[in-house]
Amino acid sequence: MHSHPIVTLLTDFGIRDPYVAQMKAVILSICPRTVIVDISHEVEKFNVRMGAFILASATPYFPRGAIHVAVVDPAVGTKRAPLIIETKNFFFVGPDNGLLILAAQADGIRHVYQIENQRYLRPTISYTFHGRDVFAPAAGHLAKGISPQKIGSKLLSYVVPSFSKPLIKNGKITGEINYIDCFGNVVTNIPASLLEQLHVSPGMLLQLHIKGKRFAIRFCQAYGEVQVGEPLGIIGSHNFLELSINQGNAARLFKVVVGDPVDLHVT
Amino acid sequence: MHSHPIVTLLTDFGIRDPYVAQMKAVILSICPRTVIVDISHEVEKFNVRMGAFILASATPYFPRGAIHVAVVDPAVGTKRAPLIIETKNFFFVGPDNGLLILAAQADGIRHVYQIENQRYLRPTISYTFHGRDVFAPAAGHLAKGISPQKIGSKLLSYVVPSFSKPLIKNGKITGEINYIDCFGNVVTNIPASLLEQLHVSPGMLLQLHIKGKRFAIRFCQAYGEVQVGEPLGIIGSHNFLELSINQGNAARLFKVVVGDPVDLHVT
Amino acid sequence: MHSHPIVTLLTDFGIRDPYVAQMKAVILSICPRTVIVDISHEVEKFNVRMGAFILASATPYFPRGAIHVAVVDPAVGTKRAPLIIETKNFFFVGPDNGLLILAAQADGIRHVYQIENQRYLRPTISYTFHGRDVFAPAAGHLAKGISPQKIGSKLLSYVVPSFSKPLIKNGKITGEINYIDCFGNVVTNIPASLLEQLHVSPGMLLQLHIKGKRFAIRFCQAYGEVQVGEPLGIIGSHNFLELSINQGNAARLFKVVVGDPVDLHVT
Repeated sequence: MHSHPIVTLLTDFGIRDPYVAQMKAVILSICPRTVIVDISHEVEKFNVRMGAFILASATPYFPRGAIHVAVVDPAVGTKRAPLIIETKNFFFVGPDNGLLILAAQADGIRHVYQIENQRYLRPTISYTFHGRDVFAPAAGHLAKGISPQKIGSKLLSYVVPSFSKPLIKNGKITGEINYIDCFGNVVTNIPASLLEQLHVSPGMLLQLHIKGKRFAIRFCQAYGEVQVGEPLGIIGSHNFLELSINQGNAARLFKVVVGDPVDLHVT
Repeated sequence: MHSHPIVTLLTDFGIRDPYVAQMKAVILSICPRTVIVDISHEVEKFNVRMGAFILASATPYFPRGAIHVAVVDPAVGTKRAPLIIETKNFFFVGPDNGLLILAAQADGIRHVYQIENQRYLRPTISYTFHGRDVFAPAAGHLAKGISPQKIGSKLLSYVVPSFSKPLIKNGKITGEINYIDCFGNVVTNIPASLLEQLHVSPGMLLQLHIKGKRFAIRFCQAYGEVQVGEPLGIIGSHNFLELSINQGNAARLFKVVVGDPVDLHVT
Repeated sequence: MHSHPIVTLLTDFGIRDPYVAQMKAVILSICPRTVIVDISHEVEKFNVRMGAFILASATPYFPRGAIHVAVVDPAVGTKRAPLIIETKNFFFVGPDNGLLILAAQADGIRHVYQIENQRYLRPTISYTFHGRDVFAPAAGHLAKGISPQKIGSKLLSYVVPSFSKPLIKNGKITGEINYIDCFGNVVTNIPASLLEQLHVSPGMLLQLHIKGKRFAIRFCQAYGEVQVGEPLGIIGSHNFLELSINQGNAARLFKVVVGDPVDLHVT
């Protein structure tokens, strides 16, 4: 039992409405010493993929024992199961729709539980807000030291989304766009290791094929290696290839959205 | 005196400017162990009604002893009184313009104080920012365990806004739109108890009359009972009738704003 | 060593992406009892001047010992130095691009250190995100009580931006617009002391010359001294002359942006 248990929150609730505060209130009512950290409440409404990416990007940096609550839950009130996933270092709490899996798999899934025990939930459970009535109280009790076995029962089957994986063939990588951050950095699903297989090194030109257009951009280690306003490729802080513009917005230049394919080779 | 006193903040200050941080700095300077929870800083500028609704929706979930500071204060610097309201479970701190009353009445008002004692305020009080110079220090001292009697003197008269109440007559409910959340859910002021008087039960059709148009929507318990993109009526997490669209934005469909009247009967 | 050390964060990272949460995770991993306070993450991308203004406005209200981390860092990954600035009451942590100086000078600079000791940074330092890999770990160790001498070495030369200063000549003040807040209040760089030199007192008319247009507005102590919708001049909560509209947006009326000059005299 931690003296400063951490509960993180990721939702698509936005920050104007009272919903996030209600979740925090429920957690603090159960475990007053909890340190609550917002990961993001600006996930696009109902966009499970975006939520999964942000969660998987943020969670590895938290200390062992952190409890990560994620609620992007278009099927709230239906039969989709409420989950606690126990991983090597963390607990993940949220709906069984794939939102948690990318982050949980990266940390190493140990056990998956379906939240069931009414004793650890709010006395009345709305059909529209399990974030407040199911997931927040489950997290609060985990923070307090209640074991997941007491809150739920083991589940053998759960939703595993098929996140697209990049391919390498005949010296060409085919990937796709995974995320676009608010700087306009275009994050692909191409990891550094795949670029190494093509012997890509700093200073080389990446030949990109995106939405019918061709671009040649320099592979760099820092934004400042190209002029302000010039494009570049870089292994970004998520550890994937990013297309960026030094002090500019690459998503606007490349006119891309999440899911668009990216072909890449070097010359 | 709590070991983890909670101070919540609700304002119309937004999150870009330094104002919210200044309030938190003042509170932590007075009571360093305070747990500060943001309810919302995205209340529409000067919209006391919106602030009152969000405050009343969020505060009931907080543990006993929480101190709720709310600042939507178009008359800052004039003679409107700065208040501490002591309720059954909480303290509310903010301007005397009705902002606090909806939430405070719901919890049960015990005493109302006008903040007066300079000793518990900042040494210099600006005319433009009582959030920082009056309300934050008052809250910090309450968190520290100072009694409200020391900070202010009892007040017998304060602003009670006339929040519109729904009517039921000849089998028809006349209510109005109280809030629109960032999902586009349209929250009316019609509580579940009023629908029960009309013997509304899940699956029935609600006949709505809104801004000259008629709509027939199904009364449901969960969004998933209608197809994605279809409208429904539901008792939402605020415990009022909401008009929603499964994974969609109902405010856009119904083209409504807060204050619009809603007529409702069942067939 | 504080029992509740405070680390504040100011960035241009926005609140949707995982970046801010990663910084908080790193800090809490190093010093779990840290109280983290967001100043702002909505600084305009790469706008060092805006970041410097918000930082300088917020930090003076924090208790002694607070550690202020600010990251608006267009030159991340280049040779610009990472700094710890020790001031009379605080530590400031961030890039050597002027961002910290306005706030640090106001508190009184004691020593400036260049962050160097790998032991107190993340094991791998990305070229794109020193907020997470350099500044957050440095702040976490300062919060834990590590002295800045252990984290870096003294630096004698650092970037001091030339923030524009207002002039007074022949009874006329020439200043400029320093900041526009989200209410539309137009904050100039003209301090109260300069208005006193012109013997400005409440009720007098200020004659303004802005972008080729002339305005005469009343100098007031509170917004409520003019009608709703009317303009006024006021010493705002930043302690500079602000041009405001009672319950309205002055930036829209005056059609100004940050950096625009303002001429002022009284009649």
